[in-house]
Amino acid sequence: MTPPPADENRLIDWLRRRTGGALIGDLIGDDAAVLPAGSFVVTVDHQIAGIHFPPGLDLALAARRLLAVNLSDLAAMGARPAYAFLALAAPPGFDHRRFFTALLAACRRHGLTLAGGDLARHSVLTTSLTLLGTKEETARWLTRSGARPGHALWLGGTIGESAAGRILIERGAPQAASASLRRAMRKAMRRHLQPTPQLALGHWLGRQQEGAAMDVSDGLARDLHRLCRASGVGAEVDAAALPFTDRFRMLCEAIGADPLALALGGGEDYVLLFTLPEGIAPPEPGARRIGGITKGQRLVLLREGKHTALPDAGWDHLARK
Amino acid sequence: MTPPPADENRLIDWLRRRTGGALIGDLIGDDAAVLPAGSFVVTVDHQIAGIHFPPGLDLALAARRLLAVNLSDLAAMGARPAYAFLALAAPPGFDHRRFFTALLAACRRHGLTLAGGDLARHSVLTTSLTLLGTKEETARWLTRSGARPGHALWLGGTIGESAAGRILIERGAPQAASASLRRAMRKAMRRHLQPTPQLALGHWLGRQQEGAAMDVSDGLARDLHRLCRASGVGAEVDAAALPFTDRFRMLCEAIGADPLALALGGGEDYVLLFTLPEGIAPPEPGARRIGGITKGQRLVLLREGKHTALPDAGWDHLARK
Repeated sequence: MTPPPADENRLIDWLRRRTGGALIGDLIGDDAAVLPAGSFVVTVDHQIAGIHFPPGLDLALAARRLLAVNLSDLAAMGARPAYAFLALAAPPGFDHRRFFTALLAACRRHGLTLAGGDLARHSVLTTSLTLLGTKEETARWLTRSGARPGHALWLGGTIGESAAGRILIERGAPQAASASLRRAMRKAMRRHLQPTPQLALGHWLGRQQEGAAMDVSDGLARDLHRLCRASGVGAEVDAAALPFTDRFRMLCEAIGADPLALALGGGEDYVLLFTLPEGIAPPEPGARRIGGITKGQRLVLLREGKHTALPDAGWDHLARK
Repeated sequence: MTPPPADENRLIDWLRRRTGGALIGDLIGDDAAVLPAGSFVVTVDHQIAGIHFPPGLDLALAARRLLAVNLSDLAAMGARPAYAFLALAAPPGFDHRRFFTALLAACRRHGLTLAGGDLARHSVLTTSLTLLGTKEETARWLTRSGARPGHALWLGGTIGESAAGRILIERGAPQAASASLRRAMRKAMRRHLQPTPQLALGHWLGRQQEGAAMDVSDGLARDLHRLCRASGVGAEVDAAALPFTDRFRMLCEAIGADPLALALGGGEDYVLLFTLPEGIAPPEPGARRIGGITKGQRLVLLREGKHTALPDAGWDHLARK
């Protein structure tokens, strides 16, 4: 028998009250949740303390991060959030109310119904979230396989800052920093802990006739390789077009990281990487064109007038070159 | 960035070959899996090494147990297995191929498509599985709320044996046992590790006009309380009708457990608990009638001519009385 949380019955009563009966599923209702008929996309993601986020992270932040990372997958499909299912294994003394209050509030903001789940005890906080998304009838699902030679290659926002934030959290922020550097460090750590899924951009892309999309979770280089493999195309990335702000360069100097390596391989950026026919620009203010899709299978980085191969690698590999 | 398994790319290539492209989802394809439109039930369950199954359990058994426990929830809804999504966090050196070979074979046997998932590293093997099920158009979804006064109360099979198996695994089997006791112990441990979801019984129940159903995971007493609460009814259980075989009594004696306490509160039986109008009997040979549904809210145990309240408690509580 699964050892239930000490106060499982009280927790479930509390959840039932908090959700006003919106929970339809296997956590507090039947053995499974019955969904209204429809067309769905499904995505699953882990978040484990000490692996995906620092142990001891405020549980409200942990809950919001779990949801944000998963919502980014829905954004990459052009989907609208619909239902969430949570598997939560937590240590004794875990503050379920703090976690669920934050999770339910974030679900409400995104139009998500927490429709079921499973609770257990575990020495390490271990969560996995399954999200189901729907789409407008006239929109299409986005895929990684829709890139065509001649498409422009776009990023929905900046990259590398989240990885800088992760390094700062792991190593601790350097002392004796200027006020502007301290501010930049705080922003990077927040960016890492609380990514913003680009759902509106995903919906806009889903209403376009063509183009591929995915979210950047494992670093631009590795994820672009995946997109190009799925589409059977190559790509050229213009290093000068990558969004390096002064703040990001200052940060990289402070932590001794190469901005380009961090941007290409850092990961967990949770911005959309997408392609569009020439002449179409997304309404997202932070989006920028970083290159183009080519025939063949080569992925090339254009840097200071020279073309070099863009390796299929994460930050660790790029940093060690 | 999520630390991927050491050989993630090779693993994913291997999975792609093994599934012949049947995988449509976020593990090896796009950011989420696109499902054909339809009506679905969804259920999520954890299985964590050291919590839900013994650490060091053969990974093929762990994979099959994960699936079986979840399929039991689909059985309780009258659903047909359709899609599976796996979140798998495994320690370094984990034999992904052994785990996935067993999981994919079991999925095939049940008509399930492994449609996506998420892989991560973790010191403790931690799995969570999301299953989506469908139903025949003319069938209904089963719920816990369909019990009516006058219904007969049924169990789909024996209870208590799985809990005896768990105790044997935890404490080790006693030495100097007879051949028949050794056989009974082996059967109980296997029953605990490899439950059989009652999918065919669930489908039959879904074709009946009325009746409630759920699967017994936390013990008959606690789960019957849940069913009665959901239906707004009471129940009377006849202790003499509970399926106590000689083998089960012998086992209980060997481990020093009270057969009735283990049967009522042991849990993880994964047989269906259901109600039917008088005069209708299920085709399942192992099913037996154990009592009836009554008006009001009282849950009563009839034992040696006396009526006592049936507590809303698991085995630990019942055993300590």
